[in-house]
Amino acid sequence: MMDAAASDPVAMGWMAGSPPPAATQVRWDDGSMWRFPQYRWGFSHMRELVPTAAIPRAGDVSPLPLALRDELDDVTLTTLAGQAMSWRQSLAATYTDAILVLHHGRVVYERWFGVTRPDTQHILFSVTKSFVGLAAEMLIAAGKLTDDAKAANYVPELQGSGLGNATVRQILDMRTGLAFSEDYVAGQQGLSDVQRMSIAGAWMPRLAGYDGPDGHFAFVASLGQDVPHGGDFVYRTPNTTALQWLVERVSGLPLAALIRDWFWQPMGMEADAAIAVDRLGTAFGGGGLMASLRDIARVGEMMRLGGRWNGRQIVPQAVVARIFRGGDPAAFAHVNYPGNPDGSYASQWWHRAGGQAMALGVHGQGIYVDRAAGVVIARLGSHPVASNRGNMGVTIPAYDALVAALG
Amino acid sequence: MMDAAASDPVAMGWMAGSPPPAATQVRWDDGSMWRFPQYRWGFSHMRELVPTAAIPRAGDVSPLPLALRDELDDVTLTTLAGQAMSWRQSLAATYTDAILVLHHGRVVYERWFGVTRPDTQHILFSVTKSFVGLAAEMLIAAGKLTDDAKAANYVPELQGSGLGNATVRQILDMRTGLAFSEDYVAGQQGLSDVQRMSIAGAWMPRLAGYDGPDGHFAFVASLGQDVPHGGDFVYRTPNTTALQWLVERVSGLPLAALIRDWFWQPMGMEADAAIAVDRLGTAFGGGGLMASLRDIARVGEMMRLGGRWNGRQIVPQAVVARIFRGGDPAAFAHVNYPGNPDGSYASQWWHRAGGQAMALGVHGQGIYVDRAAGVVIARLGSHPVASNRGNMGVTIPAYDALVAALG
Repeated sequence: MMDAAASDPVAMGWMAGSPPPAATQVRWDDGSMWRFPQYRWGFSHMRELVPTAAIPRAGDVSPLPLALRDELDDVTLTTLAGQAMSWRQSLAATYTDAILVLHHGRVVYERWFGVTRPDTQHILFSVTKSFVGLAAEMLIAAGKLTDDAKAANYVPELQGSGLGNATVRQILDMRTGLAFSEDYVAGQQGLSDVQRMSIAGAWMPRLAGYDGPDGHFAFVASLGQDVPHGGDFVYRTPNTTALQWLVERVSGLPLAALIRDWFWQPMGMEADAAIAVDRLGTAFGGGGLMASLRDIARVGEMMRLGGRWNGRQIVPQAVVARIFRGGDPAAFAHVNYPGNPDGSYASQWWHRAGGQAMALGVHGQGIYVDRAAGVVIARLGSHPVASNRGNMGVTIPAYDALVAALG
Repeated sequence: MMDAAASDPVAMGWMAGSPPPAATQVRWDDGSMWRFPQYRWGFSHMRELVPTAAIPRAGDVSPLPLALRDELDDVTLTTLAGQAMSWRQSLAATYTDAILVLHHGRVVYERWFGVTRPDTQHILFSVTKSFVGLAAEMLIAAGKLTDDAKAANYVPELQGSGLGNATVRQILDMRTGLAFSEDYVAGQQGLSDVQRMSIAGAWMPRLAGYDGPDGHFAFVASLGQDVPHGGDFVYRTPNTTALQWLVERVSGLPLAALIRDWFWQPMGMEADAAIAVDRLGTAFGGGGLMASLRDIARVGEMMRLGGRWNGRQIVPQAVVARIFRGGDPAAFAHVNYPGNPDGSYASQWWHRAGGQAMALGVHGQGIYVDRAAGVVIARLGSHPVASNRGNMGVTIPAYDALVAALG
């Protein structure tokens, strides 16, 4: 596998020229946007490849004061595989596209690699889910959704489907028995579940053999149930699609408008965001948000500050407390995530035993909030392995070393 | 044909609901985005239907001070067809989506209809061409393009195609003999030239029978020549594509980055813009720009002020003078445009005999600059007729009446 320097998207020359020569093209219709190292360019240019709904910013930008400490480059750490490296080396080892560290609200570290810039709308993948989770918890806090109510109570179209009789809480915590395999490297014959979901959502073209539904919501309504709901945590993206459906139905807001009105505009974000939409205009709440590094750092900081940012209570304190409480480690233990032995997953956020909350996207996106240390880390990435298992063996010890150094 | 009130996109309920019911969907893949009245929603949501490149704003917003004069609603006019109406009625008669009038730099009138809001990125169609024209004139002024040089001098890929031996000036002024018919309502068998261009540019799905090139640049390079260059003005969008190709090649900037760096960021725009891209990431310089009403008003005001805006010389004064000089009315006379008997077309801008300059987009987009009167009018629209012939019989007398009233 090419390392970060060899796969640098500027050096590779992706999409350079008018028009770009065939060998340098990164495209939706031939699937090249999903290939490494092409996607080291593509993840920063996803909106040029798929339709998106706008999430416009507004008003004055909320400040992120600078107190840079470039010596953090030299912080040393040992990866879970036992390799010694510096913080700076850890960024290359994890194919980091951009990273920002806040300590007690000040930017102590910020780096840009490859094709990223402060206004790049980088795909966040499953970090998107954590916004849907916040929205659902906010609706629960407002009494508009109820933990124990069944999904079909709110969205009758789910009646009879795998998730119709799952509760809001089971879906929020991904403890459902949905018949869906989140396998990004499926080798079996025919289309994988993830491919089918991607085709339904226009994330990929309609491949031969696809006879499934059209649109994210129709896709989740087409899924059955394998095992009883309420068992162990199993990560399955269509849970988030169902949750998004409940959130949109109950709030009356399409997800893009909700993120605009509840987060982007009141938080004084500095860049517009965007979210991928299917052929019916439905946002991909499971993974389609595209936003700037500094703006996702603001989300982390808002969470660190108990939901308060830019002079407003963005998220109720009780919701933030709920996120930081995490879920049931016993339901999570079987997944055996590198660097997170006693953690959990709840409300579409990841939780470490040390009390840290994380929003994580495949290929290395992340918002990491350590309230005890006063540290927030925002990260964009394009790791060749389509799983955070590919980088958490480095990032978690790196974060712990950085927090110790900031001490 | 439904009138403006009957076809109001809010009343029609397009794309409302999670997901929107089939009868209310406006889609790319079934062509409904190109149908009236669906496009009264679609023109304000084009980026949800096709991939786009970002044109981000930056920094402080340049002010547009208010001095509203709501009594302008009652200005009376007589259309070229002899119908008496008020200014306000003229807006409905032309299916206006939003309009803003500046008088000596102050907003004297602003109205929003249907689904538009101040941050709506409305498709501008051929107003886009006027940005490409400004860029080309700026490169001429900088000595990087030469009026009399052949297109193939700059873009060797055009050698042997219809436009390879056309000069920069002939292309700028649309006085080429390119083999292409700009007919939006073609009735002949097979695909029309406009359909073929739209398919090449991913503006439409690949329809049965399409065996043409992929991408805007490959499309223009595939066109032949009908008659000698240098004859009368004939409006053909691929001229702009070729011009964009020259501009990108000579400047080294893809069009989205050029508009960002030369216009959007230095001008202190208030909203991000976007531009539709083909499957290779090439922007549609012939008609793909999406921007907010107030930001295109800023462009008009910058032109009125001799290229100066937000404390900077955005466009050299000599270029602005060139635009306002217009072209050769004799080459224009045959087109017999309603309301513009002695006008011309030059540098991708329209010109009236009274000295006004106009950027015009099909279905009623426009930037109208009357320097003598100190008036700038920015307009978004979704007129059912795919030609400005459909609305200029109303808009031109309306503009003249408004200018007289502001007097």
